[in-house]
Amino acid sequence: MRPEVIHVSLGNAQTIPIWFASLTELPSYCESVDLRIGPCILITDTNLVPLYLDQVKTSLLDSGWGPTTEIIIPSGEASKSADVLQSIYDQTLQSGLDRQTPIFALGGGVIGDLAGFAAATLLRGLPLVHLPTSLIAQVDSSIGGKTGINHRIGKNLIGAFYQPHLVLTDLDLLQSLPELEWTSGLAEVVKHGFIADADFFTYLSSNWDAILQRDNEQVQRMVIHAARIKASIVSKDEKESSLRAILNFGHTFAHSIERVAGYGQFTHGEAVALGMRAATKVSSLIHPNLPHHLIDSFLLKLPVRNSIGDISIDALIQAMYYDKKVMAGQLRLILIRDIGDAYVHDQVSEDLIAQGWESIMQS
Amino acid sequence: MRPEVIHVSLGNAQTIPIWFASLTELPSYCESVDLRIGPCILITDTNLVPLYLDQVKTSLLDSGWGPTTEIIIPSGEASKSADVLQSIYDQTLQSGLDRQTPIFALGGGVIGDLAGFAAATLLRGLPLVHLPTSLIAQVDSSIGGKTGINHRIGKNLIGAFYQPHLVLTDLDLLQSLPELEWTSGLAEVVKHGFIADADFFTYLSSNWDAILQRDNEQVQRMVIHAARIKASIVSKDEKESSLRAILNFGHTFAHSIERVAGYGQFTHGEAVALGMRAATKVSSLIHPNLPHHLIDSFLLKLPVRNSIGDISIDALIQAMYYDKKVMAGQLRLILIRDIGDAYVHDQVSEDLIAQGWESIMQS
Repeated sequence: MRPEVIHVSLGNAQTIPIWFASLTELPSYCESVDLRIGPCILITDTNLVPLYLDQVKTSLLDSGWGPTTEIIIPSGEASKSADVLQSIYDQTLQSGLDRQTPIFALGGGVIGDLAGFAAATLLRGLPLVHLPTSLIAQVDSSIGGKTGINHRIGKNLIGAFYQPHLVLTDLDLLQSLPELEWTSGLAEVVKHGFIADADFFTYLSSNWDAILQRDNEQVQRMVIHAARIKASIVSKDEKESSLRAILNFGHTFAHSIERVAGYGQFTHGEAVALGMRAATKVSSLIHPNLPHHLIDSFLLKLPVRNSIGDISIDALIQAMYYDKKVMAGQLRLILIRDIGDAYVHDQVSEDLIAQGWESIMQS
Repeated sequence: MRPEVIHVSLGNAQTIPIWFASLTELPSYCESVDLRIGPCILITDTNLVPLYLDQVKTSLLDSGWGPTTEIIIPSGEASKSADVLQSIYDQTLQSGLDRQTPIFALGGGVIGDLAGFAAATLLRGLPLVHLPTSLIAQVDSSIGGKTGINHRIGKNLIGAFYQPHLVLTDLDLLQSLPELEWTSGLAEVVKHGFIADADFFTYLSSNWDAILQRDNEQVQRMVIHAARIKASIVSKDEKESSLRAILNFGHTFAHSIERVAGYGQFTHGEAVALGMRAATKVSSLIHPNLPHHLIDSFLLKLPVRNSIGDISIDALIQAMYYDKKVMAGQLRLILIRDIGDAYVHDQVSEDLIAQGWESIMQS
């Protein structure tokens, strides 16, 4: 495949390139955004070390980069913590970095958010390069500059908007993703269709079997298209003052599931798929013409857990109030009027929300 | 005095107003920048609680603000720590804030940096209002968006550039500052003359006695002029890619003194006065026409400690390598060619730096 590129254009004349190419070509893409060849920091997780670390490191060293400071984080959401962040600060500062020392974030959403927030806050900002390895990271979390860690009160409550210099997305990595990561990542891909692009939803529906089997051509087409939707939304509203909020479709429910069930009990993609079904149910109560069952049955085709079991609805609703999108104590939700047409709905009643939760209590 | 205002104009069409007016007028200035009247967070330190907290709180409550979450930090540099930051996160998140809940930072440089960094990183950014109470904060740290905390390896190594919505500077507060804070704050004022404004240095020299005695009219004139210099430099280079670095004149030495002597042994202003003398000495070795003794004798008039005693020069030099301005292991310093004309000098030799240190070993 010829390398493709998407440009995320931001307000202040800043443009972030997202290249789709092999990880081994990292040095030449770094050069194209004028990163200083020299010492650098590589942050990745324990699962990825045997898969990609040597490959990335060798390609850097062969092109004159180094020394590299390697920081290996335990894989999983629990690493988005103040303690792990502090250990990144300790290790990087001990290595003697300066403001031109880039951080390479090699991993999925957890590594991107964590390493991105470290880059945002070390010396008030180091150059950052995202090397997304998971499907969620490639279509969503590596694009748009959201970084952060969790707090016991809720997910992503500590963080910053911080843009990378470059995103290098290697689509071949998706072929070796564990099945559960692949299928749960598809939830975020589908979300892009629901909120902003009905044609994309149609395309996904028509090619769903090939996609589930990771047909190479369909995977490339799907990921690049989904990344383009995300880039377009971010370009219009970097700091989430309005439009960008629609990307949170299903996420207020999802965060609540993850929080009440305990982080790690559901994958983020599973929680998002469930959350989108709940949000679709609520949407259909307000917009009766919404093809609710079409969406619901499509999401049920995802081979992931499709009910939350017997978690208390009261606890789930209570947890929603800690969401960042809560304004002055009112529950705001992202709802859809139709496929491809999402919006922010203020003051959704708890009664409607409870019906949303009930719709995903059992499969 | 009629309220004066300075506007800090930033690249992305953002403008930060710095108002010089009474603290009690805070609500009307908040309204002028469209902050949402409602819940808010007040962060201040133990020393300031008996002086100003009630006054600020009452003026807010009287104008319909509230409830207020008050966070009281132990006064002193040691509070710029990861632990204190975490306690701010815990207290604010427990209070149930949202993205429109502003943080009012009532205090000197420590509170401004710490509360500013909390505002930068809570929910990826809350509205921030600086209410600077010290001289250093009024002329320097409240202007320009630098926020952060210390790391055991060095000062301000963790942080972010984050602009306030508003700075409200009450010049009357300076009259009740402890003498040591006043005199050590003057070091930063003088710095603005050295680096960017020879006329301002002349003005300070001519009115020095009145200023030391805090003559009301001279204090107002001096603070507003010094704030204007800072605002102008920040407007030209918000992220310190070039020009803004000159504001660090004396600071690589100063941070080294604070680090090696132990934080709190020297006030920041004392360390900066000493650091500027060392930097001036180094400057004079490279630029023989610099009126080195004029500057040195002026700085010696500051009634603060004027030598570092018998700290090891080797340890001081070693500590300079941890400074954020060190590029790829080379010591960069801000030097002056003449009064009002500072620049970044790359690769200063350790021999010259040692001579700088020697010049402030004894008074």
